[in-house]
This record gives sequence, C-alpha cells and structure tokens, in this order.
Amino acid sequence: MAIITLTTDFGEKDHFAGAIKGAIYSELPDVRIVDISHSVAPFNVPEAAYIIQNAYSSFPKGTIHVIGIDSELNPENKHIAVKLDDHYFICANNGIMSMICSEIAPQKIVEINIHDRVGTSFPVLDVFVNVACHIARGGTLEVIGKLIDHIKPIKNLNPFVNDEKNQIIGSVIYIDNYGNVITNIKRKFFESVQKTRDYEISARSYKFKTIYDKYSDVINFDIPEDKRYDEGKGLVVFNSSGYLEIAVYKSDNASVGSASSLMGLKVRDTVTVNFSKL
Amino acid sequence: MAIITLTTDFGEKDHFAGAIKGAIYSELPDVRIVDISHSVAPFNVPEAAYIIQNAYSSFPKGTIHVIGIDSELNPENKHIAVKLDDHYFICANNGIMSMICSEIAPQKIVEINIHDRVGTSFPVLDVFVNVACHIARGGTLEVIGKLIDHIKPIKNLNPFVNDEKNQIIGSVIYIDNYGNVITNIKRKFFESVQKTRDYEISARSYKFKTIYDKYSDVINFDIPEDKRYDEGKGLVVFNSSGYLEIAVYKSDNASVGSASSLMGLKVRDTVTVNFSKL
Amino acid sequence: MAIITLTTDFGEKDHFAGAIKGAIYSELPDVRIVDISHSVAPFNVPEAAYIIQNAYSSFPKGTIHVIGIDSELNPENKHIAVKLDDHYFICANNGIMSMICSEIAPQKIVEINIHDRVGTSFPVLDVFVNVACHIARGGTLEVIGKLIDHIKPIKNLNPFVNDEKNQIIGSVIYIDNYGNVITNIKRKFFESVQKTRDYEISARSYKFKTIYDKYSDVINFDIPEDKRYDEGKGLVVFNSSGYLEIAVYKSDNASVGSASSLMGLKVRDTVTVNFSKL
Repeated sequence: MAIITLTTDFGEKDHFAGAIKGAIYSELPDVRIVDISHSVAPFNVPEAAYIIQNAYSSFPKGTIHVIGIDSELNPENKHIAVKLDDHYFICANNGIMSMICSEIAPQKIVEINIHDRVGTSFPVLDVFVNVACHIARGGTLEVIGKLIDHIKPIKNLNPFVNDEKNQIIGSVIYIDNYGNVITNIKRKFFESVQKTRDYEISARSYKFKTIYDKYSDVINFDIPEDKRYDEGKGLVVFNSSGYLEIAVYKSDNASVGSASSLMGLKVRDTVTVNFSKL
Repeated sequence: MAIITLTTDFGEKDHFAGAIKGAIYSELPDVRIVDISHSVAPFNVPEAAYIIQNAYSSFPKGTIHVIGIDSELNPENKHIAVKLDDHYFICANNGIMSMICSEIAPQKIVEINIHDRVGTSFPVLDVFVNVACHIARGGTLEVIGKLIDHIKPIKNLNPFVNDEKNQIIGSVIYIDNYGNVITNIKRKFFESVQKTRDYEISARSYKFKTIYDKYSDVINFDIPEDKRYDEGKGLVVFNSSGYLEIAVYKSDNASVGSASSLMGLKVRDTVTVNFSKL
Repeated sequence: MAIITLTTDFGEKDHFAGAIKGAIYSELPDVRIVDISHSVAPFNVPEAAYIIQNAYSSFPKGTIHVIGIDSELNPENKHIAVKLDDHYFICANNGIMSMICSEIAPQKIVEINIHDRVGTSFPVLDVFVNVACHIARGGTLEVIGKLIDHIKPIKNLNPFVNDEKNQIIGSVIYIDNYGNVITNIKRKFFESVQKTRDYEISARSYKFKTIYDKYSDVINFDIPEDKRYDEGKGLVVFNSSGYLEIAVYKSDNASVGSASSLMGLKVRDTVTVNFSKL
C-alpha cells in the first residue's frame, strides 16, 4: 500500500487539506495518507524545508511526499518531482528541496509538464494529486515531466566559518512548538570546525559554554526538587535532528516562557560560536 | 471501504475528535475516517457550511460526512441526515446544509428519530456516529429518521442585485488561513449580472477593476525581482471554489499582513460591484 | 488490525508527529494510527491526563495509546507501559496515568528497560514507538520492562470534603475549546456527598443553584428567539465526561466570550459547592 504524506501551509481550518484527501482517495481507495503538517507559516519555504527534511526519513522507502507551499505556477515558480533517497517529493521549485538536496544528491528531478492536460486554479489538488497518484500506481517521473539537473537554492541555508577558522556564524532557521530556537549549525559541521577546542556560543547577549546531550542534563538531580532553580535557565543541545538548538528546560510560550520569548530570539537572528586557541 | 469525514468545532486540543474516531472504529474496524476540519470557530454555522461545501465533492460518491457544529438536540435544533449528490451528510438542522442545498437539490432528507434509543450527552458521539455507521453498513435513511422536505435556511447566504441591475451587493462570508477575504459572490452569478460590462469592486475604501485568474497574475515578471513593488498589493480573484475573493499576494497575517488585516475586512462586511453602462 | 493512538504536546506545526507516524508505518504497514491530540500545552501533564482519560474508552479493547508529554528519560522520569481496562498506555511515569488509575486499577505496570538497546535523543520516536510496535505484534510487557506496582501520582487530582460534610472544595482542571471551565468534581462524587440536599456552586463571585442536563436547558424556548437574553448567561452542567463544568451557552473565546474569559476562571482556581442542611 502506497503512502502519500502532506506538508502544507493550508492551516487547520480551511477545506483545502480535506479536499486534497478526498481527491486522492477518489483515485486510489487503498492508499494511506499521512499529515505531516498543515501549519507551516503561509509561504514560509525555509520552515517547510526544515519540517520535511526531518520527517521524511522515518517513512518507508517509496513514500510520496506532497508539499503544498507557494505552489502557484508562474514563470518563476515551476512544479517539480524529485526522487531522492528512494523517496518521492512533489512541490514547487522554490527552494523547499534545497535543504534536503544539500545533504543527499537527488536520484532524479523532473519539471512537471502536464499542465496543459489539467486545470490549475488549485495546483496541489489538480496537479500534485495527479502526479502523486501516478507515482503511487508505479508510473515513472519521465511520463509527467522533463528531466532537469538542478533545483532552485534557498538563501542563508548554511552557516559561515571565518578565515581564521575560529568562528562559526550561523543563524536561526526555525522556532519549534516549545519555543526552542534552532540554528542552521549541524553537529557534524560544528565538530569538523571545532576539532578538540573549547567554545562559547553567543546569541544576543546570552553565552553558553556547554552543549548538553539532552534537555534535562541542565538539572542537578542531587538537589531536592524544591531547591532547584535550573528550570528556567537557558541551555544548548544538539536536537534530535542534529541541529544546534538554544532551549529552556520545560518551556512553554504561553506560560513560563521559552528560549524564543525569554531571550528575544527569532528566525534569521545571528548565532555565533567562538573557538579558543588550540 | 466506506469513508466517513469529520467537520467540527471541537478544536485541535480536546478529546472530542479522538473519542469520535474511537467510537467509529469500535463499530466499523475497516472504515476510513478523514478529518476535514476541527477548527471551525465555535458554533459558527456559516463557516462550517462554506468548508463542507468546498470539501465534500472531492470525495467519492457514497462518502458519509459527519458535521459536529452546534449539534445539541433541543426544540429548535433537530438532527438530520441528508442525501445529496450521492453523498450523505449528518448534522443539526441549523443552516449548515443550506449553502450546499441552494445549489443542488437534496435527494432525501430525514429528521433523525433514534434519540429514545441512544443517550445524548454528547450527540455527535452518541447519535451521529450511530447514524454514520448505519449508513456505512448500507442502511437506509428511513430506518433512522422520518422524511421531511426542507431544511432550515441560513441568513444572508446570497448577494443582492439592485433594481437597475447595475450593482451587486454582497458580503464577506469567510476569511481563510491566508487572511484572504471571501465573499458570497460566485463567478456564475457575477457573470450573469455582468454580461460584458466593465466593473468596479468596492470594499471599504478599496477599489478593484480587474479580477485575476490567479494570485501571481498581479506580478509583472518582466521587472527584476528586486525592483517589484507588487507583492503587498491587494487583488481580486475568483478562488478555486468559484467565489469572488479579495486577497494579497503571498499574504500572512502573522508577518506581512493579509487582505483581512491590511484592509480591515471581516466577516459580514459589505462588498459591492458596480457595473458600467452597456 | 492494531490501533495506535497518539496524544502529545508536539503541536500542529513541527515534524515530530509526522516522524512518529512514519516510524510506526515503517515497522507495521497495516496498523491504524489515530491522532487524539497534539495540542496539549507543553509539559502540561494534568491536561494530558484529562484528555487521554476521556478519549481512550471509546476505542476498542487492545488499543495502544502512546502519550508523548514530558517524556525525556532522567533519574526522576522513567518510562512505563501500563495495561488497564484491556488498553495499553505507553508514557513517562510523570502523573499522566494517575487520573485514569484513580478510577480503574491497572492490570499490569512495567518500567520500560530497553534503553540500552535503543538511542534516546527523541524518546517517543525511539522508545515508545518500539514498545508500541512490540505490543501490536502481540508481545508481552514483561519483555520490554520490569514489573512495578504503582505509578507516580498527580497533585490536586481530587476535590476535598470538609469535616461537616457540607462543602466540597474542588478546583479547575481543564479549559476546553469553547472556554468551558471543567472542575475535578465528578457527578458520582458530587451525588455521594449531596445525598438529597440543595446546593450552591461558587466560583469567584459567581453562584449557581442549578445543574442542567445539557447546555441548551438554560434557554426558555417558549420565549421568541429575538426576546431571549439567556445566551450569554453562565450555567453549570455535568459534561459528557461526567465532570462538573461551568459553561456559557454557545460560547466562543474569540467572539462572544466564554465561561473562562467572561468569569475570569482559569486552571487551578477554586470551585466550591455548599450544601444546605438536610
């Protein structure tokens, strides 16, 4: 049974996601549809890129991922289907795939060219569903598009290293549901620059000299629970997706606050890492 | 395999939608349940009517649509099941079906009368699930209700035309996830009044003389991207559901703003179309 | 076909819930995954306890409930699997199960001990999915954990009765999607203290002397609709889950207001019931 996932900025309220599912089940009664997210901020391509990158690889090989963000066809925004890591991705060529593709080379990219055959007032419904069902039935990408060899990049995807190799200049790429602040600095990249040096991480006026393995490592469990004052303290971890993340233990934007709200950090803010001399 | 869809105002957090799904799977292990929306504003019947109208027809014939909005049984709020366009709808008789029924005549309407047989402290769980499973098993509407011949109307569903036939007076019926402002003026109706005349659309102090085919038609792609100033401009389209919609290209309430936030337009506001002399 | 439900504080936007689903389908292609809620407030254990208690029992016996709230493993937060009422629950031992367990004795509790075999940077993905799939394949709890005999309690779960047995002192445990204010006073408990006495319910300066059977019982349907002034009035019901609830008829936080917003009631506020002399 084929799996089709949905990642969109349709929100939780409108009829769009429901209509998509109805259209897929009308074509393929036995397919399995899985929502990854419909709450990507409208037209927020980097956010969608982060979400799909970190969700797709849990799914079985052969899964088809429909990404409905900024998908209106126009001279600067073509539709593509990408085979990568034995998964299929259907989306606009607007940068969404560049985060995944910067780590894993695509096996095949086609620019979808079935638009003369299908109406397009709602491209995800009319075009992407059509392509997804074609792939789910075992169809090849060449039938629905022409081969191209590269995709549109996203800006500021990667952090910079200075010439002296003693500083990484990264930036915030995502704020998660807990208000955790996720940077574009991945563990492997960090370690390749760090070697064995000490480091200091800076975000606005906040400084951190430890990267924890998990959030609760900030807590000293030898101190009785009512005498601890660590819970609101900021901390840094590599998160479960491997990104350097500034967090607050047990944070919640709506009550106790979060790394984002308490430290005033937001997407595109700079985060730097300074390494000591060897 | 039967499909049962859910459209409710239960929200994303509470246990209600989960409990409904558990109850359906307990009766019918092989049914397919599809969420259309659980984020209809509480008790907002017109909003639910718009959502279900635009989602249902993507689903296969025979699909059963459970609509849980304002469904407490009382002397003024009966439960109905409607067969229309070979789909089934189960809801309160509170106007939700009047938007769909104004376009397509129902094949059959029954007022549900099984309440003496089932408890009703949670009518969607106790009554609607029961009826949905009955229909999914091939049962007829007459077994669970008595035939009636019309449903409760919704107010202000349709726009007005003045006596001179040179003005349509419509209103805003829905604000979508992008902050787009959707009116009750449908394309077919618009064109039947317009004939070949020029037009001017007015909403508050904003005027529009063009209805675009799609959102990005407002952009002049011949101008280099960094010299364009069109992105924040308002525009009018017929949306993918055929409704006249005031939009802003790539809008987002939380960042750049939207037609609703930037123009101060909200549900029930008046939108007029003035036609020139022939 | 096994059913696995998900109740988490992952929110609607992030990739976490999608990744979990992908991991489960990768192990068990034919399982059915049902979302109960991903919008529990971050780290809000009492909220999760209320939601899972009121959703689980609609599902068929044998259903496996994964609860991902505050699930990072640390010296004070172990992972458990519980069999209760012929359902399975997988969660951290942080109080989530104490609301259900206060009413129904667990059949079996194990502390999960497979952590040396699986990585844990994302425990719900790495540990809970593993355990859920083990149970879904018919595996026993003893294989993935060691038997323990009680679970961590939650504070302020139950209301108090004074020595004179003429007052119940309860508190608000949950605010639902309609802004209804739900207390920890259950119908059975209320009636066991009440016997046949009259009562007065107090919350801040608001007093109620009637508990209705359903919300619309506050409305006098004999009065014409345009002459009624009951709609914004507060009322008390036992809700569909059996809890004493302070509500406003047809409430909506975002428009007309709700019991929570209009009366200023929030979680942990005190609600008292005073009984008259017999």
